[in-house]
Amino acid sequence: MGAKVPIILFVFVMLCALSLAIPSKRKPYAPCKNMVFYFHDIIYNGMNAANATSAIVAAPKGANLTKLAPQFHFGDMVVFDDPITLDNNLHSKPIGRAQGFYIYDTKNAFTAWFSFTIVLNSPYHEGTITLAGADPTVKRTRDLSVTGGTGDFFMHRGIATFITDTFQGDAYFRLRIEIKFFECW
Amino acid sequence: MGAKVPIILFVFVMLCALSLAIPSKRKPYAPCKNMVFYFHDIIYNGMNAANATSAIVAAPKGANLTKLAPQFHFGDMVVFDDPITLDNNLHSKPIGRAQGFYIYDTKNAFTAWFSFTIVLNSPYHEGTITLAGADPTVKRTRDLSVTGGTGDFFMHRGIATFITDTFQGDAYFRLRIEIKFFECW
Amino acid sequence: MGAKVPIILFVFVMLCALSLAIPSKRKPYAPCKNMVFYFHDIIYNGMNAANATSAIVAAPKGANLTKLAPQFHFGDMVVFDDPITLDNNLHSKPIGRAQGFYIYDTKNAFTAWFSFTIVLNSPYHEGTITLAGADPTVKRTRDLSVTGGTGDFFMHRGIATFITDTFQGDAYFRLRIEIKFFECW
Repeated sequence: MGAKVPIILFVFVMLCALSLAIPSKRKPYAPCKNMVFYFHDIIYNGMNAANATSAIVAAPKGANLTKLAPQFHFGDMVVFDDPITLDNNLHSKPIGRAQGFYIYDTKNAFTAWFSFTIVLNSPYHEGTITLAGADPTVKRTRDLSVTGGTGDFFMHRGIATFITDTFQGDAYFRLRIEIKFFECW
Repeated sequence: MGAKVPIILFVFVMLCALSLAIPSKRKPYAPCKNMVFYFHDIIYNGMNAANATSAIVAAPKGANLTKLAPQFHFGDMVVFDDPITLDNNLHSKPIGRAQGFYIYDTKNAFTAWFSFTIVLNSPYHEGTITLAGADPTVKRTRDLSVTGGTGDFFMHRGIATFITDTFQGDAYFRLRIEIKFFECW
Repeated sequence: MGAKVPIILFVFVMLCALSLAIPSKRKPYAPCKNMVFYFHDIIYNGMNAANATSAIVAAPKGANLTKLAPQFHFGDMVVFDDPITLDNNLHSKPIGRAQGFYIYDTKNAFTAWFSFTIVLNSPYHEGTITLAGADPTVKRTRDLSVTGGTGDFFMHRGIATFITDTFQGDAYFRLRIEIKFFECW
């Protein structure tokens, strides 16, 4: 009788040791935090200095800085300080800014590459979220990487899904950005 | 006799508890995934629009956008959409694209700084790998950081080693990129 | 008597299993490594080629490459190869270089966005540290993300705090950079 209990225990201990030996699957694949933002971009065209939130600062040979380049804007680099809102209304009170840049990097499709930081400063959130990744706009959803965070997002990592919410030619576009954090600390 | 078994179990449990108390060394230092890619870059020189895969979009005072700057190209920013192949043949079918930019950032040596995403789209892999880091080309091997991934490379991190496989003046260079992931999820 | 020991063991095993089920808080919030660096930036103004450590390579419409743009330098992109020292003396022997770029990204405040790699090459440290994040210079301290590392900083992540140590108009600025690593491997 006294011998049977230790056998059950032995199994427990083995399972316990086994679960230690399987390394990575312990991390939860369900997000530890979710957020949804809207990102508004109004590019400077030479005449809208008051409203513009971004500007072309570099362009390939033959292109200029107030009109997006031909060939799918290939080579244009755009620096932005874009408002971030909680709903899809450009005129809602921003809860933060998205600061950084994107480049159009393909000659035969609208594909951009983003690298920027969302700086949140509201009663709800105080901190930064840094992202980078490719944005092939032909796909309905595009996943980028969240590579770091500070403040309320200290050491966070995760995935940011971009969805084009609307666009008006080259004048304005709005992204819905769904952030899923999988490492929250 | 019945007492001896529990003592052995006790040791097991203690070892088990101990391994929980040692925090970080559990992460494996052997890579959890390895990949080797070849990266091909043909810079736009004003006459090779059809073949070029990259273009100078920013340059320091006095330099232009169809010829790399003097002083080790210091200040040139190059946007690229470069094919990624599995072998070192430029004409092999690409398994993906490397999209992003590099800048030459030193006045007295050939040193670049890369920030880009490898977008894989093949029967073998679907997903993205985002990298950033310094590339001091005088060294035979250079380590950059893999800061994030999506799809098949969900939340991955690791090290990317760059090796110059060949170059033809300023017209073409090919990198061998060995990626070792140490965090795989 | 022989039954009591297994009960204690059972509690141990349960605690052990429980601690496996609590996922993330095990990571230590105290830094596993601390470093302090000074970052020196002398921007090229058209006349200081010998001393300059950085250069404007992109600027918005109407601005040029030897003078920072009006409107809080919005849109200027600066590529740098800046010396890193252990104390606040520009003339101390550098222990490494900071290589990458910053962009001024706000029209109504001095805010920059940095993305770069600290390349250390000294008897004390050999390796790289890659950072990215917003730098709203009006705040006394600004937190950026350390997104990766190589060599002595293999796979490290953490927070870098920027403090403006001094500045002389547009000619020179010095940052005190305090790096706290929270993931050290």
